[in-house]
Amino acid sequence: MNQPPKSERIPRATIQRLTTYLQVLESMHKEGVQVISSEPLSRICDVNASQVRKDLAYFGEFGVRGVGYYVSYLLEAIKACLHANREWRAALVGVGNLGRAMLNHQEFRRRGFTIVAAFDCDPFKIGDTAYGLEVYCTKSLMEKVPELGIEIGIVTTPPERAQRAASQLVEAGVKGILNFAPARISVPEHVFVEYVDFFHQIYSLTFNISTRH
Amino acid sequence: MNQPPKSERIPRATIQRLTTYLQVLESMHKEGVQVISSEPLSRICDVNASQVRKDLAYFGEFGVRGVGYYVSYLLEAIKACLHANREWRAALVGVGNLGRAMLNHQEFRRRGFTIVAAFDCDPFKIGDTAYGLEVYCTKSLMEKVPELGIEIGIVTTPPERAQRAASQLVEAGVKGILNFAPARISVPEHVFVEYVDFFHQIYSLTFNISTRH
Repeated sequence: MNQPPKSERIPRATIQRLTTYLQVLESMHKEGVQVISSEPLSRICDVNASQVRKDLAYFGEFGVRGVGYYVSYLLEAIKACLHANREWRAALVGVGNLGRAMLNHQEFRRRGFTIVAAFDCDPFKIGDTAYGLEVYCTKSLMEKVPELGIEIGIVTTPPERAQRAASQLVEAGVKGILNFAPARISVPEHVFVEYVDFFHQIYSLTFNISTRH
Repeated sequence: MNQPPKSERIPRATIQRLTTYLQVLESMHKEGVQVISSEPLSRICDVNASQVRKDLAYFGEFGVRGVGYYVSYLLEAIKACLHANREWRAALVGVGNLGRAMLNHQEFRRRGFTIVAAFDCDPFKIGDTAYGLEVYCTKSLMEKVPELGIEIGIVTTPPERAQRAASQLVEAGVKGILNFAPARISVPEHVFVEYVDFFHQIYSLTFNISTRH
């Protein structure tokens, strides 16, 4: 490797593909694959090979000519680039089915994301335990977020409560919000929001199924 | 409107933005907004205004000079383009927390997606009822998919069971799969797969939070 990656310049679309590479490389690593070339990686990830090479070039000289990429080395480099090689502490707001799925998400935890507190505004849920966590009233976000070193808020409320949850998380000091609720939310500029909106994918499906030649 | 939209030519990135416009326009419609110009629409959707105009131009002449777009007309046109203006019948495989969240997803149902059957391979779950649906053994997919006119399969299994679920769905005749499991799956070319992988979004968050200037 020649240089540390200049992460600031990596475009968003590349970040998205890096996540895909990461997932594929991790399962290869588990299966004992040590070296991979760009062709099979590109095939599994459904990205063309020259794009794969271009994306990985952000990290300097990885490939070994005639051999390919060292899987474990590439894995670590991608994780470092995404800042996925450390623990991230998160608060979850909205303890319904989706919230519970997140609390019990093995893969999420395994990747260093720890939900350290769960919140709801339903008095029937507050005080209950969900996957080992006590469910707190959303009013205590102001206290818990700094106390527990929480940086990320996860919103799994119904859509009509998403904005309130987001505002409370922002006020409490989170740096970013992962919003699973099917509703747009507005937050101050210094806070990042990402939407997990599977309607994008389902409409791609319906569109593709319907317009297939 | 001059011409019907040439859906086949609309790029994937546009389809994704159409989904965002749809969501924003629907909540505006609910609030009684009748006309909107590209600037506020672009602001709320976090897309630049010229891109919005370009995207909407696929549908022909929508905008009314000096007025904007008619919300209800635009809504219907986008829905027609995405083939979201009809019922889609889906089978869900994997009745865990996430599967239950999908079975109980009001917004999903409201948008015309109906999960008509739920499947699991866990003998303790088979025969149970989840949100009004009997949980069937995955072996009965072959029979149920054609019988119930199912076109879409939703995979909400743990990652290690995703490929088997996908293969069973394909064999049973679905046209597309929405995969929520954090695992790549392979299917024949005539079947479409979309991944709902929130690690894309969470790594965008960690990347943005960490590289903010």
